[in-house]
Amino acid sequence: MLEPSWIESANDPVAPFPLNNLPHCVFSRTGDPGAGWRLGVGIGDSILDIGALAETGVIAPPAGHEDAFRAPSWNPFMAAGPEAWAAFRNRLQVLLSADRRSQDGEGDADGDRDAVGRALVPQSAATLHMPFTVAEYTDFYAGIHHASNVGTMFRGPENALPPNWLHIPIGYNGRASTVVVSGTPVHRPWGQLKPRGADVPVFAPSRRFDIELEMGAVVGLPSVMGQPVSVAEADRMIFGYVILNDWSARDIQAWEYQPLGPFQAKATATTISPWIVTQAALAPFRVPGPRRETELLPYLREPGPMSHDIELDVSLRPSGSETATSIARTNFQELYYSPAQQLCHHTSSGCRMNIGDLLGTGTISGPERKNCGSLLEISWGGKNPIHLQGGEERRFLEDGDSVVMTGWAQGDGYRIGFGTCEGTVHPAIDPPDWAT
Amino acid sequence: MLEPSWIESANDPVAPFPLNNLPHCVFSRTGDPGAGWRLGVGIGDSILDIGALAETGVIAPPAGHEDAFRAPSWNPFMAAGPEAWAAFRNRLQVLLSADRRSQDGEGDADGDRDAVGRALVPQSAATLHMPFTVAEYTDFYAGIHHASNVGTMFRGPENALPPNWLHIPIGYNGRASTVVVSGTPVHRPWGQLKPRGADVPVFAPSRRFDIELEMGAVVGLPSVMGQPVSVAEADRMIFGYVILNDWSARDIQAWEYQPLGPFQAKATATTISPWIVTQAALAPFRVPGPRRETELLPYLREPGPMSHDIELDVSLRPSGSETATSIARTNFQELYYSPAQQLCHHTSSGCRMNIGDLLGTGTISGPERKNCGSLLEISWGGKNPIHLQGGEERRFLEDGDSVVMTGWAQGDGYRIGFGTCEGTVHPAIDPPDWAT
Repeated sequence: MLEPSWIESANDPVAPFPLNNLPHCVFSRTGDPGAGWRLGVGIGDSILDIGALAETGVIAPPAGHEDAFRAPSWNPFMAAGPEAWAAFRNRLQVLLSADRRSQDGEGDADGDRDAVGRALVPQSAATLHMPFTVAEYTDFYAGIHHASNVGTMFRGPENALPPNWLHIPIGYNGRASTVVVSGTPVHRPWGQLKPRGADVPVFAPSRRFDIELEMGAVVGLPSVMGQPVSVAEADRMIFGYVILNDWSARDIQAWEYQPLGPFQAKATATTISPWIVTQAALAPFRVPGPRRETELLPYLREPGPMSHDIELDVSLRPSGSETATSIARTNFQELYYSPAQQLCHHTSSGCRMNIGDLLGTGTISGPERKNCGSLLEISWGGKNPIHLQGGEERRFLEDGDSVVMTGWAQGDGYRIGFGTCEGTVHPAIDPPDWAT
Repeated sequence: MLEPSWIESANDPVAPFPLNNLPHCVFSRTGDPGAGWRLGVGIGDSILDIGALAETGVIAPPAGHEDAFRAPSWNPFMAAGPEAWAAFRNRLQVLLSADRRSQDGEGDADGDRDAVGRALVPQSAATLHMPFTVAEYTDFYAGIHHASNVGTMFRGPENALPPNWLHIPIGYNGRASTVVVSGTPVHRPWGQLKPRGADVPVFAPSRRFDIELEMGAVVGLPSVMGQPVSVAEADRMIFGYVILNDWSARDIQAWEYQPLGPFQAKATATTISPWIVTQAALAPFRVPGPRRETELLPYLREPGPMSHDIELDVSLRPSGSETATSIARTNFQELYYSPAQQLCHHTSSGCRMNIGDLLGTGTISGPERKNCGSLLEISWGGKNPIHLQGGEERRFLEDGDSVVMTGWAQGDGYRIGFGTCEGTVHPAIDPPDWAT
């Protein structure tokens, strides 16, 4: 049920940021960069400036984390732990609720509401930044349709899923330094490519530059080096989720990835949506994982529902076009392994996790072509071009293409939206003089 | 030639830290943890406390980086750039030189020497910590003997080197959160293992826990996202080197690594030596890379000698034994790709590099069994046990085993030593109750 707010724009049943959501962002006032990066929470068409509100005393930072609301990222707040996360959410829900006065007997209710009103910034007047500092970035491969499709293309239908796939949430370490917020330009990468039939590789801009539709889990609590954690504990360590585009150069990847996995093919950029949607906001949308095709080892079994019913959409807009074409529609539930299982496995060898670690789920493809989260799959390795509205075709990305990913959980009369994860492909940057 | 110092212990021709070296560390006074972590430079059997010396005014922090000498890591100093690195080295060489008074006409020479004397701490009274904050950790695979040996064991002699190996400095992203300083206990990892002939994996402590002898390049300057850098520029970005042990669980690795590369097998720990030996100290030991078996692409060609003549040794001491057995002896020159080539390739797709990025070279094995940098190779997959002094045998590591790696460049009458990279294997930590 929609929780009504006195901020009217939050009560639209298809708006992304009702009172039920309260996603976390970092923003600056557009045209006032001197004001710095500030913590914000989305409500309706506004951002609640948490730093400003804390200065009035209407909300208090967590005990022992007095500077948390003055930081330019949510990491210090995450460090305060799940009880602080819940208390903050509860306090904001009281302050923003249409029913607030009947629930909150204490304090100067009208004064609080005035203070909240003064701390609201229109989203249209804000620039959004990275909502957290990425400690390390790991990318999983937990979509069974994606793994089957890619395996079929690369190794044939008999070997579509690697032998370990139904036992291990396969993952690899990615590059945190190129995780960027929605809207950041992405330059086509250079790399070693080996054209079909050629004896030796060439160094050239990628010709098969692609997207991967994923979600990212933001780790809010650390683990201890040497000590594995359970799936249930891993679930409690996850602060929230973002939408994630794992830009991928398929030609670089095909030549480089044996035997140590993808490296430069995935290092160009990873774009995330600027709003962290908290686990608490997604609680009503928890659903059990899929039927297991083979029994999981005990350490990976889930003690409760840890997948989520989240709709996802990808659209593509060529340079100069007004029209974006939806090219894929899928759902978080297509993941075979939940982020909690991924995080549990990540700690299994004693790997220490830190606040701000980002775990990409892997590409979330569904069973049909229209549900696939990469151009590689939609165009089946470039064989079947995608027809865009306006008449253009695509096999892989062209310079100037903009890709927009969106997601939402559909509740009873409300939505939990994620905002957008957008990136535009720019031409490859000229390389340096190699000799100097 | 040895550069003589007025600190006598620095003038021993086989001592690791003569005036020619001046390696950088972070230390605390043993038994006085309240004094905090401080920057230090090794000279003879002492550490020069850089923070204390800077407070006297005898050395000055780089302009614009006034807090650099008060930080608990060398990252802020590295940010000052190569000219500052050179100026700092020059100033220390003047202050510590036996010939100082004849070279340095200015200032109160005796007063400076007194101040230096008061800032010296015996290494025996110091605890060494991580010398820098690791931004991200990348591990390469640039040893041709190692790659050939592992490839032969896993894929047969016909396919020893992957097709891309002679063209690409193959690498993968590792886990920065478990890079630890020499002396840190390393717990045997848990993981998924698939026993030979079994239908399904088990979750158990690794039975084939191993070492990898590597060196690590410390990146001291950042690069720009989207912009590849040349080999020459990459060489200028490297601040210095450490010895690195990339602990590896071979059984976890064998089951997990297809298709996305090593993950939990390498996430348990990576141990580094506590002294960063600077590029400047190693300049006399530069040597050309090996003969190329196939022509490199232009972007990877080296405009000058970028390998180094550095001797490396690994010894193993079982629990309770007084005797360490040297099990491998090799040389940095066995690397097919230099760290500068690795770093250049790392930026090729536009990957941004940051100050404090750590690049492992890959296992440095030589041509014979006695030159191999991993137990996997020395015991040839466990088939040929290693005989230790004292009568024990090893195929892989047992609990209680201590591994010590050392390295040095041999000059004319002096050595540039790296100190030791040591770790002891502790039993696997009991896992949690998986259901809660």
